[in-house]
Amino acid sequence: MSTPSFACFGEILIRLAAPGRELLLQTPRLEAHIGGAEANVAVGLAMLGMRARMISVVADNPLGEAALGELRRRNVDAAAVGRAPGRMGLYFLTTGAVRRPSEVLYDRHGSAFAESDPEGYDWSSLLKGADWLHLSGVTPAIGQKAAAAAVAAARTANDIGVRVSFDGNYRAQLWKRWKGDGPSTLRNILDCAEIAFINERDVELILGMSFEGADISERRERAYEAAFAAFPRLKLIAATNRIQHGVDHHEISGVLASRVGKTELRACDLPGVVDRIGAGDAFAAGVHYGLASGKGDQYAIDFGVAAAALKHSIPGDMNLASVQQIEAAMEGGALDVRR
Amino acid sequence: MSTPSFACFGEILIRLAAPGRELLLQTPRLEAHIGGAEANVAVGLAMLGMRARMISVVADNPLGEAALGELRRRNVDAAAVGRAPGRMGLYFLTTGAVRRPSEVLYDRHGSAFAESDPEGYDWSSLLKGADWLHLSGVTPAIGQKAAAAAVAAARTANDIGVRVSFDGNYRAQLWKRWKGDGPSTLRNILDCAEIAFINERDVELILGMSFEGADISERRERAYEAAFAAFPRLKLIAATNRIQHGVDHHEISGVLASRVGKTELRACDLPGVVDRIGAGDAFAAGVHYGLASGKGDQYAIDFGVAAAALKHSIPGDMNLASVQQIEAAMEGGALDVRR
Amino acid sequence: MSTPSFACFGEILIRLAAPGRELLLQTPRLEAHIGGAEANVAVGLAMLGMRARMISVVADNPLGEAALGELRRRNVDAAAVGRAPGRMGLYFLTTGAVRRPSEVLYDRHGSAFAESDPEGYDWSSLLKGADWLHLSGVTPAIGQKAAAAAVAAARTANDIGVRVSFDGNYRAQLWKRWKGDGPSTLRNILDCAEIAFINERDVELILGMSFEGADISERRERAYEAAFAAFPRLKLIAATNRIQHGVDHHEISGVLASRVGKTELRACDLPGVVDRIGAGDAFAAGVHYGLASGKGDQYAIDFGVAAAALKHSIPGDMNLASVQQIEAAMEGGALDVRR
Amino acid sequence: MSTPSFACFGEILIRLAAPGRELLLQTPRLEAHIGGAEANVAVGLAMLGMRARMISVVADNPLGEAALGELRRRNVDAAAVGRAPGRMGLYFLTTGAVRRPSEVLYDRHGSAFAESDPEGYDWSSLLKGADWLHLSGVTPAIGQKAAAAAVAAARTANDIGVRVSFDGNYRAQLWKRWKGDGPSTLRNILDCAEIAFINERDVELILGMSFEGADISERRERAYEAAFAAFPRLKLIAATNRIQHGVDHHEISGVLASRVGKTELRACDLPGVVDRIGAGDAFAAGVHYGLASGKGDQYAIDFGVAAAALKHSIPGDMNLASVQQIEAAMEGGALDVRR
Amino acid sequence: MSTPSFACFGEILIRLAAPGRELLLQTPRLEAHIGGAEANVAVGLAMLGMRARMISVVADNPLGEAALGELRRRNVDAAAVGRAPGRMGLYFLTTGAVRRPSEVLYDRHGSAFAESDPEGYDWSSLLKGADWLHLSGVTPAIGQKAAAAAVAAARTANDIGVRVSFDGNYRAQLWKRWKGDGPSTLRNILDCAEIAFINERDVELILGMSFEGADISERRERAYEAAFAAFPRLKLIAATNRIQHGVDHHEISGVLASRVGKTELRACDLPGVVDRIGAGDAFAAGVHYGLASGKGDQYAIDFGVAAAALKHSIPGDMNLASVQQIEAAMEGGALDVRR
Amino acid sequence: MSTPSFACFGEILIRLAAPGRELLLQTPRLEAHIGGAEANVAVGLAMLGMRARMISVVADNPLGEAALGELRRRNVDAAAVGRAPGRMGLYFLTTGAVRRPSEVLYDRHGSAFAESDPEGYDWSSLLKGADWLHLSGVTPAIGQKAAAAAVAAARTANDIGVRVSFDGNYRAQLWKRWKGDGPSTLRNILDCAEIAFINERDVELILGMSFEGADISERRERAYEAAFAAFPRLKLIAATNRIQHGVDHHEISGVLASRVGKTELRACDLPGVVDRIGAGDAFAAGVHYGLASGKGDQYAIDFGVAAAALKHSIPGDMNLASVQQIEAAMEGGALDVRR
Repeated sequence: MSTPSFACFGEILIRLAAPGRELLLQTPRLEAHIGGAEANVAVGLAMLGMRARMISVVADNPLGEAALGELRRRNVDAAAVGRAPGRMGLYFLTTGAVRRPSEVLYDRHGSAFAESDPEGYDWSSLLKGADWLHLSGVTPAIGQKAAAAAVAAARTANDIGVRVSFDGNYRAQLWKRWKGDGPSTLRNILDCAEIAFINERDVELILGMSFEGADISERRERAYEAAFAAFPRLKLIAATNRIQHGVDHHEISGVLASRVGKTELRACDLPGVVDRIGAGDAFAAGVHYGLASGKGDQYAIDFGVAAAALKHSIPGDMNLASVQQIEAAMEGGALDVRR
Repeated sequence: MSTPSFACFGEILIRLAAPGRELLLQTPRLEAHIGGAEANVAVGLAMLGMRARMISVVADNPLGEAALGELRRRNVDAAAVGRAPGRMGLYFLTTGAVRRPSEVLYDRHGSAFAESDPEGYDWSSLLKGADWLHLSGVTPAIGQKAAAAAVAAARTANDIGVRVSFDGNYRAQLWKRWKGDGPSTLRNILDCAEIAFINERDVELILGMSFEGADISERRERAYEAAFAAFPRLKLIAATNRIQHGVDHHEISGVLASRVGKTELRACDLPGVVDRIGAGDAFAAGVHYGLASGKGDQYAIDFGVAAAALKHSIPGDMNLASVQQIEAAMEGGALDVRR
Repeated sequence: MSTPSFACFGEILIRLAAPGRELLLQTPRLEAHIGGAEANVAVGLAMLGMRARMISVVADNPLGEAALGELRRRNVDAAAVGRAPGRMGLYFLTTGAVRRPSEVLYDRHGSAFAESDPEGYDWSSLLKGADWLHLSGVTPAIGQKAAAAAVAAARTANDIGVRVSFDGNYRAQLWKRWKGDGPSTLRNILDCAEIAFINERDVELILGMSFEGADISERRERAYEAAFAAFPRLKLIAATNRIQHGVDHHEISGVLASRVGKTELRACDLPGVVDRIGAGDAFAAGVHYGLASGKGDQYAIDFGVAAAALKHSIPGDMNLASVQQIEAAMEGGALDVRR
Repeated sequence: MSTPSFACFGEILIRLAAPGRELLLQTPRLEAHIGGAEANVAVGLAMLGMRARMISVVADNPLGEAALGELRRRNVDAAAVGRAPGRMGLYFLTTGAVRRPSEVLYDRHGSAFAESDPEGYDWSSLLKGADWLHLSGVTPAIGQKAAAAAVAAARTANDIGVRVSFDGNYRAQLWKRWKGDGPSTLRNILDCAEIAFINERDVELILGMSFEGADISERRERAYEAAFAAFPRLKLIAATNRIQHGVDHHEISGVLASRVGKTELRACDLPGVVDRIGAGDAFAAGVHYGLASGKGDQYAIDFGVAAAALKHSIPGDMNLASVQQIEAAMEGGALDVRR
Repeated sequence: MSTPSFACFGEILIRLAAPGRELLLQTPRLEAHIGGAEANVAVGLAMLGMRARMISVVADNPLGEAALGELRRRNVDAAAVGRAPGRMGLYFLTTGAVRRPSEVLYDRHGSAFAESDPEGYDWSSLLKGADWLHLSGVTPAIGQKAAAAAVAAARTANDIGVRVSFDGNYRAQLWKRWKGDGPSTLRNILDCAEIAFINERDVELILGMSFEGADISERRERAYEAAFAAFPRLKLIAATNRIQHGVDHHEISGVLASRVGKTELRACDLPGVVDRIGAGDAFAAGVHYGLASGKGDQYAIDFGVAAAALKHSIPGDMNLASVQQIEAAMEGGALDVRR
Repeated sequence: MSTPSFACFGEILIRLAAPGRELLLQTPRLEAHIGGAEANVAVGLAMLGMRARMISVVADNPLGEAALGELRRRNVDAAAVGRAPGRMGLYFLTTGAVRRPSEVLYDRHGSAFAESDPEGYDWSSLLKGADWLHLSGVTPAIGQKAAAAAVAAARTANDIGVRVSFDGNYRAQLWKRWKGDGPSTLRNILDCAEIAFINERDVELILGMSFEGADISERRERAYEAAFAAFPRLKLIAATNRIQHGVDHHEISGVLASRVGKTELRACDLPGVVDRIGAGDAFAAGVHYGLASGKGDQYAIDFGVAAAALKHSIPGDMNLASVQQIEAAMEGGALDVRR
């Protein structure tokens, strides 16, 4: 398989988390991780041997440098990331337990990324040599500038033959904050996309429609039909479905739909979840790896779900599992200590 | 709802715990928490927006000050706590796992609280302005002085119109140590109480009776009948019942009984328990909040059990959950990350 | 001595620091402390047995609550602090070593405090019962709203007979950010003040004058004369002077000047500095304690400098030393382990 | 019961583990434990009140001394351990989660133990006064020198009336590395053994045979028959069987077979496993304790399995549970906090 | 040199210390060390290759076992230590900085050791095979029972030909607590001693005399003359003198006096002190090593002071330096990294 | 200034250090850093904005990947580093204090780098596009294979016009281990070098000569004359001189000599050293930066010494200081907190 090259555009965030299962600042210590939906995908791709570059803007201070250092550490090309005065977007995480859900407290308003001028990105140059542009619905939701940049990125990608991958990630609260028109903006991006990571609720929100059905599978089918109809460039839609038996015990399944049919993976049990954040990003990176491998759609969805599953075992936002580990998980390999 | 004011009387303890699931001093580090049954109730009440003051005596050294600082941090009024020469009561905790139960090693003998003269408390003044006095069966079990103080507190409360709340917490080992007459002392306190947090075993021990029945529910019913008969001032009895499927997997249910009937909450599943200590104290605070809210007995028991349930997810002795979190848990809300 | 009551008005900050002498995010952990110039003074006063209340606004989220919890823990009355949507002001600290100075990276822009409407403070009510209002030059430098609030606070204090204490803390960068007229604003506040913690450079900046002299002592004398002339209400001026022999080896001296003379304390050597932040706030609290004690100006300046000196030995922003510890340091007591 | 004395021969390893569920060097910290199959058995025996001495060689550096210190701390006699130039054998552990298995990365090649001359051990003297020599299949697998030493030890034990206990622990990868003849070497040792901790797969590998059967129990029966036939000195064979429901959820059962019959313990459920390493060593020590107690085979296998079960709750390689704790676990005692 | 065997009698304490330079419970974590004057000497001796046994009583709980484990880890024979119901003596340590001295908060009252019956020690048996009995003035100061045991130990040692080593360690506060007659008791022990680690102040307190002189050297000389006169069995007196330039910057010198003369070591500079506790115990162990080596008094005092000096660089109560490290320090060896 | 590109060849090591000032495994935790003389130079150069690539071989396991990740994090191009079966070279560090020097315990024997075939490096390709090849005397000292590779690298560099930079780092112990001819090998490399970081002792060892002189400056001058005479290609020699006032208090000076003269920087005081390892590598990177800046020899030596000085304040092997920080240190800038 040839190794495709991805350009991921979005904000890089710093996660500051209470240790273990403590409440925020219950003891005076925070653990730092680097995240952000698109950065997570970039790292996920790079860990699987794909070429990944990040397009973003960070604060021109030690926190911004630390964020880039972490991307480079994980083999992501961060050379195109700009620096600007301002602050890094942060989020504070309190990990849940028993019957207390995890809580994310965003502190990303007014970040250097959010404030960066959309005219400041020279998309033709930034995307040069890339096979894919990946972005998510979080980026345009940040504010008018980021929305403009995201749409411009997707359109330029279309113009210069870079394929567009889009992860829905609809964040109503962010859109509400600046009164942006989320559905319209996301439609503009989906118009450019060849693959979309969206579930039936995303489709409903974006198209302003509502889908009925006997079960989630039927609802999803109708939603995907509508999406394929609305976005002619779209070739593939993928999504996971998560069931939560408890705060630490989840179950995920996945689907990969094309215009001609769909491939599914039955539920994968996830007891003792360590860190669920970034599982969707791990899924997107895994599906891309699977598709690029040329082993077919079943392999792609299986690999994507196994990648997402392994993410639940790894602290932090990023999926650091290797192809070998993910394939072992796909095969339901032995669970005992490997020596 | 008007906000009632509680005065909690008892010893404040310092917990020194082995980190994670280590054995005591397996590695040379201990994690400190502040606890003690009544202090836990005071904090639980204050976290729910009630007014709570602590009545106690701590050692006049940095450990005593640290204990008071923690209470103040959690919004408990600690101005009435006395300082005296001596030591703080300690307990060492080794948290269990798999099939190894947690172990508490008490080191509270001869503490400043245990040694403090019962004549030293001016109860009329200490209870002034309080709606409730809360105490537990641990306090009189500490020794003759503490027993005398507890009985005097309850009686003064009765005299000046402060309602008495009592949590059974029968500790046979403590009573045995100084050969105190537990049942007789606790009867003296229950004589003053309007609400008691006691289960059927507590009633048996205190009344020196034994109750039979087809199941726990029947035994409990008979025990409660006997308690209402024995203590005419008593209006409400509440208790939880705990089933342990494993060291880390519990299940609790609750009951709130009045002279006219009872209200129950079916079992609430608690997988992946983080810290079970103080759950009973969280329950007492939760029931009081529920009763004070005027939303009825079902709300009170539901809220109390949900408060106890959430405590299992929080490291330390104290329940730091908010009304909002507890109500979300009552409603069986979504378990996924809240953003 | 009677115990005066202080109201401190300013922003409460959260410090996030790299551990030990590491660079920021060199390892992915941060240590949290609560600070802010006026909050530090409030805690310093409360630790010395004075009554101290905080007037501020924090974010209505767990970080804001944690900040208030820390003030309460240290015996500061935080009941009058407002909550508002928004973020907490943060600062990131990298502690220096050898020849690398410590670095503070502020991330306080757009905080709930900075954004709070100056009309939202009911100063007569907030200051009721206080003997002193303490504020610093940091507060008005935050932005137009905070500046308006600070001036209003000082003027109301004057009106209702609450004495005003002001700590210069001139922060040119903050003023520049919003193009505020620092000197004019600070003159408005100093017009109300009875005691000012300002050095010769502060006076030069505020009065727009420049003072010459053979040495720092002479320059300072002239500056203070000018300040007393400019601000008729001013009775006392105090300041420390810091010499740095190395990043970890400082020396401080202090002066307390009245209209009739001055009292000085010769240099106090500070080898092996642990944490220098908040030393000025510790000084202000110490001088106030000394003045309130009625033991005269020499005691006041000695106590203030000793308080500031001890702050250098204590991690965090706040001076947690007791009167006893500070008096022992004043007397140059034994340095060996106390048992 | 009289207290038998054990001599355990094998390499002492240092485990360096990623903290919690992190990947190796995800954060730059490692947690150290002392281990090695035979050292674990020695500690397990000493914790149960047996006399245990270690026979080994460690590097003559602080790491070697630290390893011996840990054995002494746990009451193992380390006086006979030699020091030699060279390195300590290490292994790096990444603890698994969810569906990611734990991984052991060995770095033990060329260790002081592996390089030590088999002629350097004076077995008659080293075994003097011991009732039992215990060794495992790991030791001869390390290399030619260690294999020669192990065989010599077992033969000398036979000669001087010290009984031999052998734990299979077949490690194909280690044998392959130096092209050693594993089956032949292990047969030489088993020829000397009175008790062997081996399962049906060990027997197949060692005897080069293959056993069929309707289920594991039948296969095991046939394998054990063959082993008793092949090794006339052998009196007892014991083994555990492990089923893994998840990375953190195991189930173990045990069997103790003599020439006249077998004793089994049904499966013991192990949810929330903390550390599974060393469970086999805990089992061997537990069975020996049980046999020495004279309470019969059922007690011995029950005690052994309970010891292994408790090991899963204790961080590190060694079983630090006491007789009292293990007996409580055997009886399925209460799981609630012990006070 | 032949290796003498020491029996050390005294209480084993657990130190619980605030991390780094934090105040006690400023953050909720404590670091544990094992200490106690005589235990420190035992470990110091064992680290230098001497045989050392501990005679003591610990609580029969996990804390007591942990204390013994630490002694064994450091090669001290703890087989003769008794277990008794009760508690372990604790002390809390806050390490000082800049101008804030370290503080020890004792919590040792009512410990298992203090409560143990002096008749419970069979001294002839406990001292069998020992060349030396070492005890300190802390032990008899603990209470009447410990005082009786200490005197009995010293007298039995005299009777059976075991030489007595005594470290003054006069603790006025402990004696005052139970109104013990310190001077008289210590005279009883010194009557038995062959070597005493006492300075001029110890002699004054014990003999109830006062010595004048031009300088400390003269005062010490007269004190030692008086001690030799008072205690005919005494052959050697040793002491260190400490000057403190700062909390972290000390200087120590040493003297070893016999009836015929004295040997001194000039001041040894100790900048950047890490942990000063146990330096006196390290000195005693070092002097004993030096004397046993047969290299003369100058070597003995030099080695003793160098041992004490190195202790200042090692966290915890015990001196873990090796003979090689101490000899390198004696020779003023290179300070650069050793590779 | 144009930005030169450096290729650094050598082994990448993993440092495992005892925390703080603890002894090795005193508590069971190690802190990991990535180091190795040439990797440190590569990182130092990249931190200063130069292009730096690493040429090396790491173990094909998670430790090797972690090492490369750290280099990438610091902007070093690690794409040319090979992976091979085997182990990573380790070293254990115990940081000294007071009068106890730091100790390094190497565990690097048999590493993947040491075992890698010198024929495996395609030097023309590996050095392509580089302006400089940097290597140190540690690399050839590792063993015959590494020595052959180092000489081949230097010679190929000469052939293809890549300038050679060499850091002496004579390690007698490593050469002794495999009986390599250090002086002869290093002469072969110095023959190729244009700049050498060597002091007078290095020259003596390499040339087998001995230089006399009134002081170090004179000896150094003669040694450098001899070196320039022996190695015609050599243009510049640089070195630092270190004086140690204490384990934590050093002083360094520097010299940069050309064939026409020398430039010196007087001693720079370094109190409170945090981490001295890698200071020489920081110096080499700093001198290269200074030379490349075209600001002359005085700037180069000043910058090099300031870089080395700052390294003493940064935990770990690598100098992470920026140009701005180093220039501030050169100018003796303010030492107070920078805000």
